[in-house]
Amino acid sequence: MSRPVYFDNNGTTALHPKVLQAMLPYLSEQQGNATSRHIYGRSARNAIDQAREQVADAVGAHTSQVIFTCGGTEADNLAITGVAGALGKGRIAISSIEHPAVSRPAEALRWQGWELDLIACNQHGQVEKSSFVAILENRPDIVSVMLANNETGVIQDVAALGELARQHKAYMHTDAVQALGKLDLNFTDLNVHAMSLSSHKINGPQGAGALILDKRIDIQPLLYGGGQERGLRSGSENIAAIVGFGTACHLLATEVRTHRNKLVGLREHLEHGLCQLGAIIFGAEAERLPNTSFFAFEGIDGETMVMALDKQGFAIASGSACSSDSKEPSHVLLAMGIPPDIARGAIRVSLGNDNELHEINAFLQTLERELARLRKLTAVAV
Amino acid sequence: MSRPVYFDNNGTTALHPKVLQAMLPYLSEQQGNATSRHIYGRSARNAIDQAREQVADAVGAHTSQVIFTCGGTEADNLAITGVAGALGKGRIAISSIEHPAVSRPAEALRWQGWELDLIACNQHGQVEKSSFVAILENRPDIVSVMLANNETGVIQDVAALGELARQHKAYMHTDAVQALGKLDLNFTDLNVHAMSLSSHKINGPQGAGALILDKRIDIQPLLYGGGQERGLRSGSENIAAIVGFGTACHLLATEVRTHRNKLVGLREHLEHGLCQLGAIIFGAEAERLPNTSFFAFEGIDGETMVMALDKQGFAIASGSACSSDSKEPSHVLLAMGIPPDIARGAIRVSLGNDNELHEINAFLQTLERELARLRKLTAVAV
Repeated sequence: MSRPVYFDNNGTTALHPKVLQAMLPYLSEQQGNATSRHIYGRSARNAIDQAREQVADAVGAHTSQVIFTCGGTEADNLAITGVAGALGKGRIAISSIEHPAVSRPAEALRWQGWELDLIACNQHGQVEKSSFVAILENRPDIVSVMLANNETGVIQDVAALGELARQHKAYMHTDAVQALGKLDLNFTDLNVHAMSLSSHKINGPQGAGALILDKRIDIQPLLYGGGQERGLRSGSENIAAIVGFGTACHLLATEVRTHRNKLVGLREHLEHGLCQLGAIIFGAEAERLPNTSFFAFEGIDGETMVMALDKQGFAIASGSACSSDSKEPSHVLLAMGIPPDIARGAIRVSLGNDNELHEINAFLQTLERELARLRKLTAVAV
Repeated sequence: MSRPVYFDNNGTTALHPKVLQAMLPYLSEQQGNATSRHIYGRSARNAIDQAREQVADAVGAHTSQVIFTCGGTEADNLAITGVAGALGKGRIAISSIEHPAVSRPAEALRWQGWELDLIACNQHGQVEKSSFVAILENRPDIVSVMLANNETGVIQDVAALGELARQHKAYMHTDAVQALGKLDLNFTDLNVHAMSLSSHKINGPQGAGALILDKRIDIQPLLYGGGQERGLRSGSENIAAIVGFGTACHLLATEVRTHRNKLVGLREHLEHGLCQLGAIIFGAEAERLPNTSFFAFEGIDGETMVMALDKQGFAIASGSACSSDSKEPSHVLLAMGIPPDIARGAIRVSLGNDNELHEINAFLQTLERELARLRKLTAVAV
């Protein structure tokens, strides 16, 4: 039996074979701890240095700006909690559509006495500039707006928002976990002080990520210990994962633009079919990531559809993959003003570089069949 | 040319081939994010569940007590900072020979207004019971004493200390990172509320560790986000690393006792030779891990010897592998009352399961030659 079609690439991606190839020596032979002085340790250190260059190059940053973490969530937490720790008490503003890896540390700050402002977004999933400007008048110390949303794929004009934040002397962070590999990223051009990245969303391994950080920013570590990463992130480095992350970043330069054009074509084909089936596509009028389609059918529960499609051999997500355990409608859609009963129907297709046209066609056929079946069941139930 | 002999297994260990075998499917095929509902996600979740059982079984804990982290340092930080966060302000007591992954978060608490007491140890590297009891009279909220020291290998009577701490209503943590795999561990018998473990010290992969935690203890997460690990440790799980950690724990039950007897024999042979060369062996009169030998030769700088032996094909550590960048003498030896000029000579051999007798013999011969050479250089310099 063939494996189910994987349409959940914003959740996680498969390792690129070249990434695995690059990692294998670091898994199959004796490695040193990168802090050790002997030849094994030095060779581990060299491997990390090379990966640091690859990550820096992929986002137009300097190697000294790269702090390796174990993933995007840690990078986001370091960007928020680490900077807040260095500031003491203050005020933080985040968009209402942030990933929990940003919104939850921000809420934790609120319990500790920080003021928290939520920046509104419009019906297309874009941050409202007027809300952003109004909130800047509150003089926030920390501002965080994601570059591309994990659910809708909607892209924010972070460079413009960053410029405004800078004029107001705020420290600005962007969660670029979903943007990396799908957009051209340049840390300097984004006008931010900090940017979070994750390896496993770009066909790299799980267990690696990075915070790209302007070195002038004071930050407290989340993890204290052996003093790795210039004392900002202690703990023995996960060498194989860091090497894999570096390699995945390196591949972006050579392979991703080709993939991007293909993805845009596949997504257009998918959404043409979805519209014919009567789907509401969220954020369709905004600039979006090339691979993401987030949609609903009136009267159809998203979770039920995900399970039905899973049985039929299609792996997709309902709401956000990172909070699939939750029964609440997507907070992103609610922030966009989507009525809760429509939001509960949301399902997400996020394409990967390996997906093909025939998979989209098969998906649309199955979806049509399942829609008819579920509507019949609902009609009987009513 | 053959690869250098690796004698730095307290720094990090090579992946066991069976561990890599268990990990490979999770690296070479499409995996789901473990929070996803589709079949890929469910299979990732099952793999994590199995690894959780393997880790729990290895240390006599219940699966519900296992919080996966990205390593020992994160487990230690969670045990200290996470519990302190739930308490607010208070008092913490740690031994004077803790790994920086415990001592640095404790120092960070001090900057935040906590009281910090250091528990003294004797010349053999054992925590002084009288100092421990006296410090308990200060009513610390948090107590942390490591099970086995990474430098000397000296084992503490944590069960007895834990019993005393419990009588004083203190929360007691032990860093068991170096003990796992080298001693039989039983979480319940240790009388502690929390215990840190690391994968890459037991021939598992880097990037995985665990905090074993009594569920009655209130703890704040270090990483907020998608709510993984019962909300105590957010972030997409590193599935391959967790599977590898589980497998490495599983192998402990079947393979480690055999290795242990072999290691004790090798270490005795090594130390017999070292004594003949005039070495001072630290902690030799205390109960120690079977694989660790920490020693010095009067008038010989440890760092210089490590570099000399590296050139001759032996990878060993000077002072603690996790702070090899530091020029200061080992804080562990200073706490034991070893004079700084002797402590600066410290070098560590930490054997692994693959080391053989002929490697020890070759090492002793090389060491004798290098000692003579370095002593001659020193004599000339004087």
